[in-house]
Order: sequence, then C-alpha cells, then structure tokens
Amino acid sequence: MILLPTSQKIEIDPIGFVKRSSPDDDERERSTVSKIVLKKELAKGLDCIEEWSHVYVIFWMHKISDKEKVLIHPGGGRNVGIFATRAPIHPNPIGLALVELVKREENVLRVRGLDALNDTPVLDIKPYPDWGNGKLLIVDNFRIPK
Amino acid sequence: MILLPTSQKIEIDPIGFVKRSSPDDDERERSTVSKIVLKKELAKGLDCIEEWSHVYVIFWMHKISDKEKVLIHPGGGRNVGIFATRAPIHPNPIGLALVELVKREENVLRVRGLDALNDTPVLDIKPYPDWGNGKLLIVDNFRIPK
Repeated sequence: MILLPTSQKIEIDPIGFVKRSSPDDDERERSTVSKIVLKKELAKGLDCIEEWSHVYVIFWMHKISDKEKVLIHPGGGRNVGIFATRAPIHPNPIGLALVELVKREENVLRVRGLDALNDTPVLDIKPYPDWGNGKLLIVDNFRIPK
Repeated sequence: MILLPTSQKIEIDPIGFVKRSSPDDDERERSTVSKIVLKKELAKGLDCIEEWSHVYVIFWMHKISDKEKVLIHPGGGRNVGIFATRAPIHPNPIGLALVELVKREENVLRVRGLDALNDTPVLDIKPYPDWGNGKLLIVDNFRIPK
C-alpha cells in the first residue's frame, strides 16, 4: 500500500483566453483558425515562438459542470475508463490540443485546430515536440485500440 | 482591443502522484520507469488504458517556487520567450510528458519517460494521439528552431 501525500488544492491563474471568430463556431472543426489572447503583461513570453510550427495548448474546459465524477465512458459500444478516452468529462476538465501556429502578434497567437470554446481559459503553451537527452521525443511507433 | 473576461482563479485537485523508484532518481533520464499512483476512488477511470501504448501525463511542478514571473529564458545563447521553451519556470508550472505505458495495476500506472520529480501531483492523463473529424491527429511535418 502506497501512502499518498495529503491532498492539497492547486490554484491556477489563466495566462489568457480563447477567442473564436464567432461564439457559435464549431470548435470540433480542426481546420478553423482561432485566437489565444494572452494577458498583456505576458506578451514577451511569446518571443521567438514563431520558430516552431506547432505548439501544445493546455486549457480549462470551463463549461464542463463542476468536477463530474463520471469514471466510465461508452466508447465504441463498450465502457472504457475516462483516462482512456478524450471525453471532456474528466475529474479535472483539462484540455490538450496540438495546434498549428499561424501567426503571433504581440500578445495574440493565431492557431489552427484548437478544439476549445470561445472564452476558454488557457493555462499554458508549450512548443512541439519535447526533447530530452539531446534528442527530439517523437513517437512514431504507437498502438491504439483496435 | 479585445477585452478579457474577469480573471478568476481555477482550483484543481490532483488525481494522483508520481512515485519514483528512488527519490534521488534523475527525472531527466527518459528510459526510467516510474509510477503514477492514482487516488483509489479513480482507479476505474483507467479501465482499458493498456490498449494505448502511449499516454500524455499533465502534472504540476510543485517544486517550482510560487509563480515566478520570468518571461525570458536564455536558450542556445540567446533570449527566447518562456512559451517558446520547455523550461520548467512558467507562469503556471504545468508539466506535459508523452510517455510509454508499461503496465496498469488497479490504481497504479507504470510509465517510461516521465520527467517529473517524486511526489509530483498529477492533474490528468490522456491517450496519444488525439483524433478529430474521424482521423488521428498526427503531426509529421513540423518545423523547429534552427
């Protein structure tokens, strides 16, 4: 039996918000370009980001009702655990999208493929891919459910 | 001028914690296997996760001192914005690792390549890759800084 540290809540301040061209935009349409508007005081943190063609966006799905405790999701006609799906209903409704960077203007990033609703709080932005031990960490040999 | 919604803090409860084989383990060594111990009541959320070979782990870098406001990082002898790097010092110290899933036992996941310290709070787990509009969202044509 492994003892977990005492649970403590983590408080996060968004770094900015998603702005879609229209609030009724279909966020599942991955060809659409949308904006991430960072807080003005964080604009300098975007310097040189255009040198990457793709970035990860980590966001908070604020329309998911408060921490629903659904652990099982019907996927492909059977029940799968929530961490084995991309269903938005998670214990923590955190979204992760790998998007194409289209343009940066001061505190605004235009990106293609962000499946987030208008006004979604953005928590972090990271370049793709990650690297470690001196090499890019690309996964080109992966397995998915049949 | 785009007006941002009033800033509100987001509160997150970790779903579990990282347990390394030894607290002194070098977390940058990507060949190492470490454990993610989920809260017992979330174990069922891992059902079927072994059908994926790789998962994303989103975690909270709890040893980074409280919200350092560094926006520029020296990378390759020049200054780049913090969102254009994988430096752990971010406005929100959120970590993202794409790891190999080695084994699941009840509420414990063994993964290879998780660059997180012992006792790191884990916020979410998601399968790799994402999909949308009926296809896998793989990025095989990307650009990185020269």
